[in-house]
Amino acid sequence: MHMNDPAWWIARYHAVRQRSLALAAPLSDEDCGAQSMPDASPIKWHLAHTTWFFETFILERMEQGFQPFHPAFRILFNSYYNGIGEKHPRPRRGLLTRPAMAQVRAYRADVDARIARLFAAGLDTSARAQLETLATLGLEHEQQHQELMLTDVKHLLAQNLLQPEYTTDAGPAPAPAAPLEWVAFDGGLADIGYDGDGFCFDNELPRHRQYVAPFSLASRLVSNGEYLAFIEAGGYRDPSLWLAEGWDWVCNQGLEMPMYWRRVEDGAWTEFTLHGRLPLDPNAPAAHLSLFEADAYAHWLGARLPTEAEWEYAAQREGGALRELHGACWQWTSSSYAPYPGYRTAPGALGEYNGKFMLNQYVLRGSSSATPAGHARASYRNFFPAGARWQFTGIRLAR
Amino acid sequence: MHMNDPAWWIARYHAVRQRSLALAAPLSDEDCGAQSMPDASPIKWHLAHTTWFFETFILERMEQGFQPFHPAFRILFNSYYNGIGEKHPRPRRGLLTRPAMAQVRAYRADVDARIARLFAAGLDTSARAQLETLATLGLEHEQQHQELMLTDVKHLLAQNLLQPEYTTDAGPAPAPAAPLEWVAFDGGLADIGYDGDGFCFDNELPRHRQYVAPFSLASRLVSNGEYLAFIEAGGYRDPSLWLAEGWDWVCNQGLEMPMYWRRVEDGAWTEFTLHGRLPLDPNAPAAHLSLFEADAYAHWLGARLPTEAEWEYAAQREGGALRELHGACWQWTSSSYAPYPGYRTAPGALGEYNGKFMLNQYVLRGSSSATPAGHARASYRNFFPAGARWQFTGIRLAR
Amino acid sequence: MHMNDPAWWIARYHAVRQRSLALAAPLSDEDCGAQSMPDASPIKWHLAHTTWFFETFILERMEQGFQPFHPAFRILFNSYYNGIGEKHPRPRRGLLTRPAMAQVRAYRADVDARIARLFAAGLDTSARAQLETLATLGLEHEQQHQELMLTDVKHLLAQNLLQPEYTTDAGPAPAPAAPLEWVAFDGGLADIGYDGDGFCFDNELPRHRQYVAPFSLASRLVSNGEYLAFIEAGGYRDPSLWLAEGWDWVCNQGLEMPMYWRRVEDGAWTEFTLHGRLPLDPNAPAAHLSLFEADAYAHWLGARLPTEAEWEYAAQREGGALRELHGACWQWTSSSYAPYPGYRTAPGALGEYNGKFMLNQYVLRGSSSATPAGHARASYRNFFPAGARWQFTGIRLAR
Amino acid sequence: MHMNDPAWWIARYHAVRQRSLALAAPLSDEDCGAQSMPDASPIKWHLAHTTWFFETFILERMEQGFQPFHPAFRILFNSYYNGIGEKHPRPRRGLLTRPAMAQVRAYRADVDARIARLFAAGLDTSARAQLETLATLGLEHEQQHQELMLTDVKHLLAQNLLQPEYTTDAGPAPAPAAPLEWVAFDGGLADIGYDGDGFCFDNELPRHRQYVAPFSLASRLVSNGEYLAFIEAGGYRDPSLWLAEGWDWVCNQGLEMPMYWRRVEDGAWTEFTLHGRLPLDPNAPAAHLSLFEADAYAHWLGARLPTEAEWEYAAQREGGALRELHGACWQWTSSSYAPYPGYRTAPGALGEYNGKFMLNQYVLRGSSSATPAGHARASYRNFFPAGARWQFTGIRLAR
Repeated sequence: MHMNDPAWWIARYHAVRQRSLALAAPLSDEDCGAQSMPDASPIKWHLAHTTWFFETFILERMEQGFQPFHPAFRILFNSYYNGIGEKHPRPRRGLLTRPAMAQVRAYRADVDARIARLFAAGLDTSARAQLETLATLGLEHEQQHQELMLTDVKHLLAQNLLQPEYTTDAGPAPAPAAPLEWVAFDGGLADIGYDGDGFCFDNELPRHRQYVAPFSLASRLVSNGEYLAFIEAGGYRDPSLWLAEGWDWVCNQGLEMPMYWRRVEDGAWTEFTLHGRLPLDPNAPAAHLSLFEADAYAHWLGARLPTEAEWEYAAQREGGALRELHGACWQWTSSSYAPYPGYRTAPGALGEYNGKFMLNQYVLRGSSSATPAGHARASYRNFFPAGARWQFTGIRLAR
Repeated sequence: MHMNDPAWWIARYHAVRQRSLALAAPLSDEDCGAQSMPDASPIKWHLAHTTWFFETFILERMEQGFQPFHPAFRILFNSYYNGIGEKHPRPRRGLLTRPAMAQVRAYRADVDARIARLFAAGLDTSARAQLETLATLGLEHEQQHQELMLTDVKHLLAQNLLQPEYTTDAGPAPAPAAPLEWVAFDGGLADIGYDGDGFCFDNELPRHRQYVAPFSLASRLVSNGEYLAFIEAGGYRDPSLWLAEGWDWVCNQGLEMPMYWRRVEDGAWTEFTLHGRLPLDPNAPAAHLSLFEADAYAHWLGARLPTEAEWEYAAQREGGALRELHGACWQWTSSSYAPYPGYRTAPGALGEYNGKFMLNQYVLRGSSSATPAGHARASYRNFFPAGARWQFTGIRLAR
Repeated sequence: MHMNDPAWWIARYHAVRQRSLALAAPLSDEDCGAQSMPDASPIKWHLAHTTWFFETFILERMEQGFQPFHPAFRILFNSYYNGIGEKHPRPRRGLLTRPAMAQVRAYRADVDARIARLFAAGLDTSARAQLETLATLGLEHEQQHQELMLTDVKHLLAQNLLQPEYTTDAGPAPAPAAPLEWVAFDGGLADIGYDGDGFCFDNELPRHRQYVAPFSLASRLVSNGEYLAFIEAGGYRDPSLWLAEGWDWVCNQGLEMPMYWRRVEDGAWTEFTLHGRLPLDPNAPAAHLSLFEADAYAHWLGARLPTEAEWEYAAQREGGALRELHGACWQWTSSSYAPYPGYRTAPGALGEYNGKFMLNQYVLRGSSSATPAGHARASYRNFFPAGARWQFTGIRLAR
Repeated sequence: MHMNDPAWWIARYHAVRQRSLALAAPLSDEDCGAQSMPDASPIKWHLAHTTWFFETFILERMEQGFQPFHPAFRILFNSYYNGIGEKHPRPRRGLLTRPAMAQVRAYRADVDARIARLFAAGLDTSARAQLETLATLGLEHEQQHQELMLTDVKHLLAQNLLQPEYTTDAGPAPAPAAPLEWVAFDGGLADIGYDGDGFCFDNELPRHRQYVAPFSLASRLVSNGEYLAFIEAGGYRDPSLWLAEGWDWVCNQGLEMPMYWRRVEDGAWTEFTLHGRLPLDPNAPAAHLSLFEADAYAHWLGARLPTEAEWEYAAQREGGALRELHGACWQWTSSSYAPYPGYRTAPGALGEYNGKFMLNQYVLRGSSSATPAGHARASYRNFFPAGARWQFTGIRLAR
């Protein structure tokens, strides 16, 4: 099949949409309704909001005689698009016991059928192009939410004294950590930003020139064992290692270790995972770290975090020297999330997708074990506030 | 059957316990898991906690070879008994997606069977008496939670833009309000507190003497129509009518009307009910009022709220002159919740049932449409903080 | 001189007013401007507000051709009288560096001269009576603020690492504590409330009948040494001794001892006083205790706090058996601050003096070492929220 | 005189130190003690802290037989140096009525005399160099606080209903605004960072290479009149113009205009200034704007804020084309405050001066009317959080 064939699009659409349901499959309807903190959303809300995205940005614009599946859903499942209108308050998403999961599944099925009909219809070239553009954005958006479904359900289950497993599948087998080596890069004038024919988010553009001074990156991510040494050396008690705001964060919350770690009675270290609470694997990459922790750890070693330009420059040129660029943990950079030179937001509500968040957030590069296959790339810019740690976030050192 | 027959007890036990499940019957498992505010609890939690009460205070003490249904439930479903040990934090009850509703139902069935076995066993007289005392307390406790199940689910559903109904049963038919008359009482030395052979809570004792000056009570509760006149006269904008703390409460929350009222686009007043959002019935008793609102309303009319001694004195002597003493709305009194002279808390964790809450709360008398039949009586002392209004609370005037 | 002589009134007026200035005499202008917490006020504000009271409630009503000393002072120095209009926000009183202390002194002198002229003028009988009533209220009001000046400046100085003294006068000489004995009272029907020809506040009226059951009071207040035994027995770590709200208060603030106590490096106990930080005198009455602490201490001993009716009943009949009724510490009662039967607030802004605070506060009886001579009496009702402890508040036990 | 002459240093030292006292001269001791918000400090605290800096970082290290002026001052006047030890809590600086202003003046005189003695002493070359380095830093530090003294006292006086003047000197005469023109720059590879023989802060180093794309800057700052047009066009009510965090900031605080603006009864616009409240001058640069407001304004015009590299690049090359680079308002850039490539913090407590604040703050370039003469330069990096607006901060547009 070819991209010009509507069946190709319908198949791709269904494959992505189906994966969201598959992620919810191990969970009960009760699990899908709860919201563990304002930053996280219920699984049911993710399933509905991603559907709302297709309904609002495609069906409402392109379907003849459009009728909403349910008029109230326009408000209930709007995340942050002021251009669309009212929104159900974010911290109260866990109170939406109605619509029921069954109704959300019906909502998904209805929208899926209508999107498929739209693809199958004989659209003119311009409409066809618009449909493909918006559907692609909707699917990439859904993949972003698939990662959030895993981080959010992990956070929810971790709150429970029963420490339930999300899945009983076998987790990754422990493997020895490779030695950490430094890989040097020459730097110079470099083009940064997406360069290709496929999809990218608007925040990866425009591709533009930057000067990058010579630098080195660590060949792999910091491991649990290495991070444990920082804890045991008193890292969480020494203000000289921390940014001022990070030290306040540590003190105000009384922090002593990463988010899901716990020291059990016999002194052994454990970590809550999607497979329940397990002994800490010293060789696995340290995960669920805030930028504050990543920066303090680097400071402790006399190293630093990479800039996002260094990371992208290296990813384009590393030739296999760097491990875990993708698929382990997102990697904090020291770069604040800012528009690339010449960046312009799109007109209308879709212009709110990225641009309005470019303040007081920091860029992460790479991808994690929770990122859908094929979703990320070297120019991909993930971003979170410096204190966020419920994502799969780790450390690649630079110097 | 007679109270000396174990079957009498088992039947009564099952009747009360069954009613809790019946209250949950119109709800989905999703509805049962959510917590709309820290003061409210999920239905599932109510169902489990009331079971925990029987398990902890009866089975754990009296069952041979006691094994808990699940060791973690001791913590998860402990409400506020420090004497029992750790507690799951109250504001996070809505995160307990596990145990599932099905497991909570199994928990109920298991404990029910074991309690029934205990009743059927040949206990010695002293153990028998202890069992009957504790079971009675457990059932009265469960009835209190049955009222909370209704107030809490109403609050939850009211948060939802869909304004769903709890039940599709026909609600009460509107009826004309009787004229409001003043009923005079002589007062004098009176004995206050429970006086009988049945059950009462420890806060209704010791029966003791008080001097009550002559007073009058309104023959019925304040109606919606009467309360609406207060709103329309600017009651929520005139600080001279309010207690200082009440005025802060009005201003800080920007309040203009009772909790579930709303003025819709055409100017009509509506009220959210267990049957969804309905037009306001001007003849029904005004409900979901805080003590602040009740006091301001009385102040506006040059009247006042009764003391709890007046209310009890009148209830013992009214001879049919007072309507809606029970079954409509709980009635705020001006009496702070305090121990009766000579009151002593019971030893151990059960001593925490009432005594430790006797501060900064105000007594309500009567009972409401949500109170289980047979649960309340003239000496019954309900209590809430002055700002609470998600309960079925109304106004009986005094002067 | 006689009360019918204007000179008597002018002399009394000046004596009370002069004492406020005398209390400020040991302080710099800088000391007089700071506000250590929202519940406390700067000394300068006290000096101005008490003057505002005379200007607003006497001169504005009674002076021919009244012109305010400064128009903005009507807002700046209004404490809580909504009937007067706008108010400068209470937590920001410490930002009023203007008017300067010198200007506040000038304000006092100006108002004092005008009040004296009013007394000296030939008023008709009715105006004369009104003037005497309002001036008396103004002076009693000023005496209440004189006590607050001492509690507020003590709180301010205690925040300072330098732990400065308010006064270098010799403090009270340590004296042995008398043995604590129980004094029994018969109780019965009693008249409660002010009964005399002099001044009382409206909250001491109407005098009314109450039934008081037999009871005993401790012959003196609890001493520092006795309270220390409670601390050393783990009183601040045992939830079973505390009201639920009190236990939250202890835990949330991490409390382990009374407000101004500290254990210094060698293990010795000290107390911050108006004479600076001093070794704790075990025989002095324990002071600066909240109702929570008073209640927990009483609970620990199997005793209780008196009701306000018991306290007043006893004070009228004790015949010298009770020490420290006055002049040491205010004594917490278990009675919530509520209107006496038949109480009505006065019309207009002066009606806000007491009535609107009758909620979620508890009554203290007696008087303290900071109370002006002649200000308190047996029927006097002081009141504070249960967690307040910057006042001179102690414990008299009952049973 | 020459820099090699101790008298040159002593004269410079006294000149800078004297100016701090001159800034306090129009203020009473009461004015000098108050703290209007946690971000601001009392004038007295600024006077003491700048002295503490010299005492702690010079005298304590270099003076023979050093004795502190007062041992407690080490804690009281430490701002944020964890390396020095304990600190008096920042939000409570306004409670330090002791030491009195007179004592702080004595502290200044004592330290000044000892610093002068140190300069006059025959130090060896290395000690001499250290003294000059530290004294220079101390004086630049004091100049930074001189600007803060003006912004903090302005904020304090603005809270007061009396709207007092800081100074009765004539303010700047209104002048017509020059037309706003766009000045184009070629860009290219540029060296950014301080390049000279004089003093700079460590955050201006290392000088390093950056690639700057072609850009234009506005020839002057945005005026009050221009900003007023934004308000009147509904700028504060249109979420599409604002960063997401900025829109929350506007809504949560109910903002409608810049910090010190007010619309008076007749509809005229006024601005609180150091000369009291004055009519708004439409031609003066708009000041006291947050980054949120600056960004929204630029967005509204289809323009943007400059990066700090663009600003510095232009300032080095503008040749008189750009007005108000210095001396009017600090100019927000879109650049987050981050370390330059190769930046290292100094060892010890002085390393806390800048580096630990490089997160969630944004760079401002230029200088303001409150900046001491000679303090700023083209490479100077001022920084504040995006919501700060009590500084003299304005807008230079870029595109």
